[in-house]
Amino acid sequence: MRPVYIIGIGQTVVGEQWERSLRHIAHDAIIPAMRDAQIERADALYVGNMLSGELTGQEHLGALIADFVGLRGIEAMKVEAACGSGAAALRMGYIAVAGGIHDVVIVAGVEKMTDTVGSVTTAGLAMAADQEYEAAEGVSFVALNALLMRRYMYEYNVPHAAFGYFAVNAHHNAAGNPYAMFPEPITLDTYRKAAMIADPINLMDSSPICDGAAAVVLASEPMARAFHNGRRRVRIAASAVATDSLAIHDRRDPLWLEAAWLSSQKAYSQAGISPADVDFFELHDAFTIMAALSLEANGFAERGRGVRLAEEGEITIEGRIPIATMGGLKARGHPVGATGVYQVVEAVQQLQGLAGRNQVHDANIGMTQNIGGSGATIITHILVGE
Amino acid sequence: MRPVYIIGIGQTVVGEQWERSLRHIAHDAIIPAMRDAQIERADALYVGNMLSGELTGQEHLGALIADFVGLRGIEAMKVEAACGSGAAALRMGYIAVAGGIHDVVIVAGVEKMTDTVGSVTTAGLAMAADQEYEAAEGVSFVALNALLMRRYMYEYNVPHAAFGYFAVNAHHNAAGNPYAMFPEPITLDTYRKAAMIADPINLMDSSPICDGAAAVVLASEPMARAFHNGRRRVRIAASAVATDSLAIHDRRDPLWLEAAWLSSQKAYSQAGISPADVDFFELHDAFTIMAALSLEANGFAERGRGVRLAEEGEITIEGRIPIATMGGLKARGHPVGATGVYQVVEAVQQLQGLAGRNQVHDANIGMTQNIGGSGATIITHILVGE
Repeated sequence: MRPVYIIGIGQTVVGEQWERSLRHIAHDAIIPAMRDAQIERADALYVGNMLSGELTGQEHLGALIADFVGLRGIEAMKVEAACGSGAAALRMGYIAVAGGIHDVVIVAGVEKMTDTVGSVTTAGLAMAADQEYEAAEGVSFVALNALLMRRYMYEYNVPHAAFGYFAVNAHHNAAGNPYAMFPEPITLDTYRKAAMIADPINLMDSSPICDGAAAVVLASEPMARAFHNGRRRVRIAASAVATDSLAIHDRRDPLWLEAAWLSSQKAYSQAGISPADVDFFELHDAFTIMAALSLEANGFAERGRGVRLAEEGEITIEGRIPIATMGGLKARGHPVGATGVYQVVEAVQQLQGLAGRNQVHDANIGMTQNIGGSGATIITHILVGE
Repeated sequence: MRPVYIIGIGQTVVGEQWERSLRHIAHDAIIPAMRDAQIERADALYVGNMLSGELTGQEHLGALIADFVGLRGIEAMKVEAACGSGAAALRMGYIAVAGGIHDVVIVAGVEKMTDTVGSVTTAGLAMAADQEYEAAEGVSFVALNALLMRRYMYEYNVPHAAFGYFAVNAHHNAAGNPYAMFPEPITLDTYRKAAMIADPINLMDSSPICDGAAAVVLASEPMARAFHNGRRRVRIAASAVATDSLAIHDRRDPLWLEAAWLSSQKAYSQAGISPADVDFFELHDAFTIMAALSLEANGFAERGRGVRLAEEGEITIEGRIPIATMGGLKARGHPVGATGVYQVVEAVQQLQGLAGRNQVHDANIGMTQNIGGSGATIITHILVGE
């Protein structure tokens, strides 16, 4: 396998982009990424997206977006793994470059979720869960996470208020990210007083519905050298996917993200590191409970102590394992099929010292993890600055 | 790049599988493919599918199906390129094995289209076209193909009846395929008298809405040797994708499948062959007009003479370039996201001498071509028997 480098990044501000169509939003991330990489062509475009069919009436995004950004003719397709679609597309791009099939691949994640009527977006998101055994019973995706959160609070005797540190950290970091949807700091008091959505998940436990796109340009070592933009080189040191059952009731232990453990173990092994070597971790905090479970399943906290890590301040920029360093899903926003690519764009910013006031000191190894469903597809990447 | 072999195949009968859910249909192709390959595990599962979100309310098919067929934990994701989704998933599997990332990959295509109410399937299929500039104007996917067919008839002065040879050939071949949806032979008279759908496309010009799944197991050379089932070895000698604009009005020439030409030229070059070396061609005859355009853009007929090839009997099993040898999309059926994998399963049957009364004599090189939309994504594979 050949080394794979990220030679360009692009992203749109996350928010409600009613004036931009799906293809425009993708364009607004891809063109900056291509400019950043100083490329005018690529061998392939892989698009991560979950809901374009349901919400926009448009499938076939690979060819559509390739054409719209001026790359008509090239290999292009869409990759889908629910909310993990962005990293799934990255995984495909990584495989194609690492395996020597392509030299330059653009990976874009895009989602347009806000320009809809009624509960269609909520119904769409439920497609990440098991349709026959979960969604068809009327349980929404938030409700599934609420069940997990309640179980966690019961099993480990954790009060709801303790989860507030995740939300406070995410909003604090989003305030330093010009691309974030909610760059407003909040306090633990804001968290406690937030409106309830699906008990015990309140508004501040939950990531928002939003629009956005992010893109990266992947390249082989010779191409990375040829198109070097002068910044620190960033290499993908590991890429791994693992799966679990979609339905939570089918898992051996609902509070253990088996696929996170499997994919991070593969990734640690591939990169030759342990969790202690990770300088920051862009995790999938779609809900605060997911942040806690992720810290545990990836080896950053003992079981039942993920929340404690947050309480103790270890997840902040200055902490032992900074998470959601640019706002995370909670406050940067969670345009579902784009999120996995946003995480990688932000990791590159950190590794290249471009994270501004959010800069993690001495950031050399960053980990990103994108989750599909309530843990059924989990995709881990480890990036290193060279 | 390493050589990639197909070591197992599986397929379901194409038809109306109301009693089987989406995951069951996929299961019914994957398990036979795994048995055929004599494998119990795989490194990854890539699923081709277009409409599961729209028609079944289920995305996230990678993890769902991996779990359901007993492969919980492995890398899995869905690949989508409209009606080209099946071959797009195969392309990803090919890349992963050729590049040395995986040794054994299962590629499955699945679609469940018939268990719906009203015009939802027609609306779903229109998602292969440009939503903003075609579908939103009310043009259905059949209507787009009707525009192409009418233009073809006008430009080349071809009567509608001449296209009947494609339908007659497809149904003749389907009669010898136990997996075909319509194994009933038809005559030119049946064709002429068929009900009109979207003038000039009649019922016999058009492939059916249906359910089905097909699967193949891909393997590296050492694994192909270890799991050799005694039949002739089949190698993927070429794999290529090309794209064009989704909207037909954006193309330089609506009657020229630029992406077919691009992808087949890449494939011929990769395999080191020319069209004259191809012993049979599983083309994407979603409509008879697509069969004609495909023969032309891939170098089997001069422009405007694709229909003539059919009239002259050159597309039959005994002809110069047999097409739709197991019934094609027209008569085997077109479960859209599965079709590209069905084509490859059938090509393996031909190359291994398992095509029964449909056997192409001395079949050593087969080409398959799967099309997304009205030609916006075109994926070509060349298979050789060794």
